[in-house]
Amino acid sequence: MSKTIAINAGSSSLKWQLYKMPEEEVLASGIIERIGLKDSISTVKYDGKKESETLDIPNHTVAVKILLEDLLKHHIIEQYEEITGIGHRVVAGGEIFKESAIIGQKEIQQIEDLSALAPLHNPAHVAAIRAFEEVLPDVLNVAVFDTAFHTTMPEHAYLYPIPQKYYTENKVRKYGAHGTSHFYVSHEAAKVLGRPIEELKLITAHIGNGVSITANYHGQSVDTSMGFTPLAGPMMGTRSGDIDPAIIPYLIEHVDELKDAADVVNMLNKQSGLLGVSGYSSDMRDIEAGLEEKNPNAVLAYNIFIDRIKKFIGQYMAVLNGVDAIVFTAGMGENAPLMRNDVISGLSWFGIEIDPAKNVFGNFGDISTPESKVRVLVIPTDEELVITREVERLKKA
Amino acid sequence: MSKTIAINAGSSSLKWQLYKMPEEEVLASGIIERIGLKDSISTVKYDGKKESETLDIPNHTVAVKILLEDLLKHHIIEQYEEITGIGHRVVAGGEIFKESAIIGQKEIQQIEDLSALAPLHNPAHVAAIRAFEEVLPDVLNVAVFDTAFHTTMPEHAYLYPIPQKYYTENKVRKYGAHGTSHFYVSHEAAKVLGRPIEELKLITAHIGNGVSITANYHGQSVDTSMGFTPLAGPMMGTRSGDIDPAIIPYLIEHVDELKDAADVVNMLNKQSGLLGVSGYSSDMRDIEAGLEEKNPNAVLAYNIFIDRIKKFIGQYMAVLNGVDAIVFTAGMGENAPLMRNDVISGLSWFGIEIDPAKNVFGNFGDISTPESKVRVLVIPTDEELVITREVERLKKA
Repeated sequence: MSKTIAINAGSSSLKWQLYKMPEEEVLASGIIERIGLKDSISTVKYDGKKESETLDIPNHTVAVKILLEDLLKHHIIEQYEEITGIGHRVVAGGEIFKESAIIGQKEIQQIEDLSALAPLHNPAHVAAIRAFEEVLPDVLNVAVFDTAFHTTMPEHAYLYPIPQKYYTENKVRKYGAHGTSHFYVSHEAAKVLGRPIEELKLITAHIGNGVSITANYHGQSVDTSMGFTPLAGPMMGTRSGDIDPAIIPYLIEHVDELKDAADVVNMLNKQSGLLGVSGYSSDMRDIEAGLEEKNPNAVLAYNIFIDRIKKFIGQYMAVLNGVDAIVFTAGMGENAPLMRNDVISGLSWFGIEIDPAKNVFGNFGDISTPESKVRVLVIPTDEELVITREVERLKKA
Repeated sequence: MSKTIAINAGSSSLKWQLYKMPEEEVLASGIIERIGLKDSISTVKYDGKKESETLDIPNHTVAVKILLEDLLKHHIIEQYEEITGIGHRVVAGGEIFKESAIIGQKEIQQIEDLSALAPLHNPAHVAAIRAFEEVLPDVLNVAVFDTAFHTTMPEHAYLYPIPQKYYTENKVRKYGAHGTSHFYVSHEAAKVLGRPIEELKLITAHIGNGVSITANYHGQSVDTSMGFTPLAGPMMGTRSGDIDPAIIPYLIEHVDELKDAADVVNMLNKQSGLLGVSGYSSDMRDIEAGLEEKNPNAVLAYNIFIDRIKKFIGQYMAVLNGVDAIVFTAGMGENAPLMRNDVISGLSWFGIEIDPAKNVFGNFGDISTPESKVRVLVIPTDEELVITREVERLKKA
């Protein structure tokens, strides 16, 4: 019996989930927040309990030690030897990592070298990996890349129509994101449909605070809406998604508080999307409350959101020359039936039809009518499980 | 019998076409280039002849005088009184001009005030309008706006998902372009289809050196691919179209010759698109020659071009919830059957099918098979004719 930890490290946080393998049973999960800041907090959930502690956690190494001590303290494990693998989510794998990798010194260096592509994330991943190496030197570390699933995109999809030297010299191309989620839900979709993924055309819509939509042809990502960074694509919680790039110099010239392109892109990442248009929230639940109150800014934010998702579904139907199923997943994709209805009800010409009785909160699986030419599925995503399975697979390999 | 001039003024050029109305007969056309530079050139075409002259033309007023003198000199007209109207193409009409307008002093000021939205074009239009006022003070001037046709777009299409103050205070929204072309070919399409435009869903693809695609619902533009500026949309001759906006600060940080956002957007406007990817030409004829030679950069440029157009057709099918006809127009749209074939052949799932015997150079009208669920049309655009008709219409009104 072995236990595997799935780690999702940010610059000041460390999310984790402990699995009993091969049973795939979640034994505990937690998050350490405010690493390196005052009043760090470690929260552990296990056996239906949730315990939080405020501590001084100056860096990721200390965070990892606290996490492991918590596991002992709460008797989730009795000794460190029970832990046989650690899986790390890594945001940017660039063109180097086409699949998950066992992490040695070379791989740490490569992940660090890719920091230009994810300046907030990759250095944090390296810090977390180094911390586990120090505290549990004999345990296998595996990196699972957000970008790996999208490395199958054809050149004409991942290259931008700009001078090629910016690709060859500066690595500017579409990398995509949410790869583990798109991978997971596309395979689950094949199970629900009872057909081999190798014969399916799928559009997977990961709609959380970040939104990415992927065109999946016979199991492979052939296009995805996030781009060089996760700013691209449809409107999101706080991100604008795609806009006319010429807006950037115009705003710099005309708006005092926006001094340079970095300022504008920061605004596009953090103050835009549902938040920027509604003026009050990035959360679809709050926007839906606004719809009920007929708040015009909420209505506008919602209508733009629906429009942009519908457009990506349309363009990926064209890319795939058809679609067998559209899959909704992640926070909003799983839990916002109104949003799903309003996206799909505008696609009746294509023979796509939702069954209102099935499109309800808490219901998963196939929500389309029997007559629908295209299946519409709701499938809860599970990125931690994919990470944990990758650790198991590479341990045996 | 009256004669109308259609004018398309740029910062250093003045294109013109003289019509006999109401017969809509083109009597002559010409272009004055290098206005305000050394060795200006005036070219006149009439009666199958083409004459060019190198002159000193310091400003638009002199250009207008030269143009009128040329008309007399070549006996295209015998006296200025024959000219009863002048139609000016104006790039940016903002939210003020929802249709063509007779130009008085108020309108000149409004067009000048909109210069922030078209810094290269609107000042040139004003210069040309003022020049005609000076030289032909009694003749009607009419402005025909590139943006007017798109003022019917719904809010959720024209607003960007960014804080609303950038719209209310800084006018940042989608305006679109090529409006006269999309207007003209959509009405011509209805004639070819023999159906009232009020019941049609059309996608009009203006594919010239600039590319814009419009979703037309019952005769009205409900979405279009150009945005705040003509940079947005699919890949073009020298323009990138949409890219991840976060690429801009990244390039500024990593590329020496790109100092600020204006530099990057200049590169995206002038050195990108077919030119940037192929490395040798923005002209589809040259790219097609490269395909025959199996030049890998030409193949790549071509494949990206096809991919992006296909994606806009897909997204507008979703926006319109269906489509009755897809209309190709402008330089490439009218004259590149290979491109049309490669866009449409990837859309067979939608029941759209081109007839290869009809999709040949020089053939216009319906090029789809009788079985095709959606008509595919090739319709030559004629923006000058629209401008001239608008002058006639407003003269009578």
